[in-house]
Amino acid sequence: MSDVLDIAKKAKNASIKALKLSSDIKNSALESIANALEENKETIVCANKLDLFNAQKMLDKKEITQAAFNRLKLDENKLRDMIQGVKDAIKLEDPVNKILWEKNIADGITLKKVTCPIGVIGVIFEARPDVISQISTLAIKSSNAVILKGGTEAVETNKTIFNIINKVLKETEGFPENMINLIFSRDDVKTMLELDEYINLIIPRGSNSLVKYIKANTKIPVLGHADGICHIYIDESADIEKTLKVCIDAKCQYPSACNSVETILIHKNAVGKIFEPLTQELIKNNVTVKADKELHNILNFVQLAEDDDWKKEYGEKIVSVKQVNSTEEAIEHINKYGSGHTDCIMTEDDYNADKFMTYVDSAGVYKNTSTRFADGFRYGFGAEVGISTNKTHARGPVGLEGLTIYKYKLYGNGDIVSDFTSGKRKFNK
Amino acid sequence: MSDVLDIAKKAKNASIKALKLSSDIKNSALESIANALEENKETIVCANKLDLFNAQKMLDKKEITQAAFNRLKLDENKLRDMIQGVKDAIKLEDPVNKILWEKNIADGITLKKVTCPIGVIGVIFEARPDVISQISTLAIKSSNAVILKGGTEAVETNKTIFNIINKVLKETEGFPENMINLIFSRDDVKTMLELDEYINLIIPRGSNSLVKYIKANTKIPVLGHADGICHIYIDESADIEKTLKVCIDAKCQYPSACNSVETILIHKNAVGKIFEPLTQELIKNNVTVKADKELHNILNFVQLAEDDDWKKEYGEKIVSVKQVNSTEEAIEHINKYGSGHTDCIMTEDDYNADKFMTYVDSAGVYKNTSTRFADGFRYGFGAEVGISTNKTHARGPVGLEGLTIYKYKLYGNGDIVSDFTSGKRKFNK
Repeated sequence: MSDVLDIAKKAKNASIKALKLSSDIKNSALESIANALEENKETIVCANKLDLFNAQKMLDKKEITQAAFNRLKLDENKLRDMIQGVKDAIKLEDPVNKILWEKNIADGITLKKVTCPIGVIGVIFEARPDVISQISTLAIKSSNAVILKGGTEAVETNKTIFNIINKVLKETEGFPENMINLIFSRDDVKTMLELDEYINLIIPRGSNSLVKYIKANTKIPVLGHADGICHIYIDESADIEKTLKVCIDAKCQYPSACNSVETILIHKNAVGKIFEPLTQELIKNNVTVKADKELHNILNFVQLAEDDDWKKEYGEKIVSVKQVNSTEEAIEHINKYGSGHTDCIMTEDDYNADKFMTYVDSAGVYKNTSTRFADGFRYGFGAEVGISTNKTHARGPVGLEGLTIYKYKLYGNGDIVSDFTSGKRKFNK
Repeated sequence: MSDVLDIAKKAKNASIKALKLSSDIKNSALESIANALEENKETIVCANKLDLFNAQKMLDKKEITQAAFNRLKLDENKLRDMIQGVKDAIKLEDPVNKILWEKNIADGITLKKVTCPIGVIGVIFEARPDVISQISTLAIKSSNAVILKGGTEAVETNKTIFNIINKVLKETEGFPENMINLIFSRDDVKTMLELDEYINLIIPRGSNSLVKYIKANTKIPVLGHADGICHIYIDESADIEKTLKVCIDAKCQYPSACNSVETILIHKNAVGKIFEPLTQELIKNNVTVKADKELHNILNFVQLAEDDDWKKEYGEKIVSVKQVNSTEEAIEHINKYGSGHTDCIMTEDDYNADKFMTYVDSAGVYKNTSTRFADGFRYGFGAEVGISTNKTHARGPVGLEGLTIYKYKLYGNGDIVSDFTSGKRKFNK
């Protein structure tokens, strides 16, 4: 308990010192980190091999999944991408100290709305050890302190990368101590979630169950999403060729991604032209199709969907398919069963597209485009903190901006409110 | 329980329908509300008299404070201001459906970041019955559904205003039902705080203890502030005349406001020139001065401050005064004891001003200006939802913008991610 509390207090102090970090110092630190990671590649690979050796035993005992084991591996390509990620951040605009808005609220009184870091960010992630470098980079760039908790399977890799980064930061003149922190145990996480006095934002990166656990157990704002139940609605005017292309991409390009499609809704008037070719194309791509009663009656060789299929994030090559009577019914289904992540309409009708994109209450609403585009890099943010289904602060793919808030700076010269309430002075319109 | 749940579900449905509300419908509804309130002034005053009659008994039994009793009263002036508030909102820019950002992320694929309402807002307020009209107005203007819980002392006034508003909305063509809702009991609040599936944001308007209770008992994001412990730091270069003016305004202009000053910090080198005239001026204005040991040694007729005076929001004509050795010590004191609301430096030194305004981690950091300026109307927002000390979503005085979030709309023509990962197509820089 006291350890994490102590780390959180120190991180809070560091975050105050970081309020004046210049872009130059931050970028110079990032450059040195990229170089240090490059120079220590072999050590990182060795640490990762040790983790993989231990994880193999867990895999054999089925304590971890093959997918988790795969994510743990830091090969040459992943390591190169990881280092490139640090370098790329140098080129991004500094998100801090930007004047968002400025106004002379009265003669001689100037108000400025200026971006600043949020403070201390807690990040809880699972197997992927490249997250530690990615999040440290984003934290440095946005002048936030960060407390990282990685998966225990990746402990050696995490520690090695963490130590490389912190050695550089210690040697970077003007960079506050205790900005990047690493904690290890599950108990530490529990404590961390209680420290709302010191930690301003929690970002969970991992499975639905991890995110749900965190959301249920903290008063600290959580930026992220639990489920990614994305839909494609095929309108009656949909173009067949485009629809097949988009559906296959959205399901098959990377089925375990949160922005992959899980349910396809088909307008009853589009079923005739589209259901059979779509099913054939899906099956050709090894996708299991689960259809509702109406559609199952048409092609009874596909599986029959059950009621809770509409609430499932399969995360693999399975898709549920349902007939709807109208765009309204599609919207209602999505708002009821969806996760507010990303949903698409395939249509050649602008009126229906507008209706769908207005009334579907999701972070991303798409027209004729694969749901797989929901991604900070594809949106052009240059970085991604995570994808949020929140209705406050940040929604959808979140870039560096999501790690900032603002403060108001007011400049006067002995100005008092009484002069305005008495009518002696007037605010500008 | 079931009542509030039912109200919340209906409000959620209403909030979806409201996603397409035009500015015209909203403004026409607001105009009719202003007229209806005007026409029913007498009824409102009668209802208020009934509440005052009942509250008098509570006051006699000391179940409510004189201040609460005063806030309950809706006189001619307050009623006029209340109606003017509705009219003023008509002129404000519609905060919804604004394109914040737009980009062709690749040839033929357009991404738009568009503002939209948050959904369902829960507002919990105490005695002041004009809040019901104010919040309904802001909710209508921003297309949010709202669930209001007012103080039980104001039940008749609240019900009357609520019924007038809802009668108008029912008669406004195209306006969804169940957008404005009123609940009554403390138990209802308890239930409301649990309904994070339906309610997206809670705004408490009232005492510290109300806000603290709410923050401690809900997983729904809360927009607001518990304490308002504001500081003025008098730097060694401070101008005496300006300093006296600003300190008196910040303490005396409206002592119970959250943006009134509670603690004044004086640089040791400014004590000689400023402490005595400041104290005299404060005492002349009936302010009780509580000084730390050093300052008490100089003027021992003032009260001696105790340790927990630095954590107190007096809310009346009391101020604590403390000597500090440096700007750094002032910053440290404020970040430790302050509430992150609004803090001011009196100085003629730009370097110290910049240091103070960078390192003080508050929603508002002021130079040579009364803390009483921290207000949405004074900032020129035309409306104020509340003042937030949060580090996410909205900070400081919050205008209509704070009741909105955004969604991403992506327009394509059968575009798929595979074409980009395969290198066939490229994203725009």
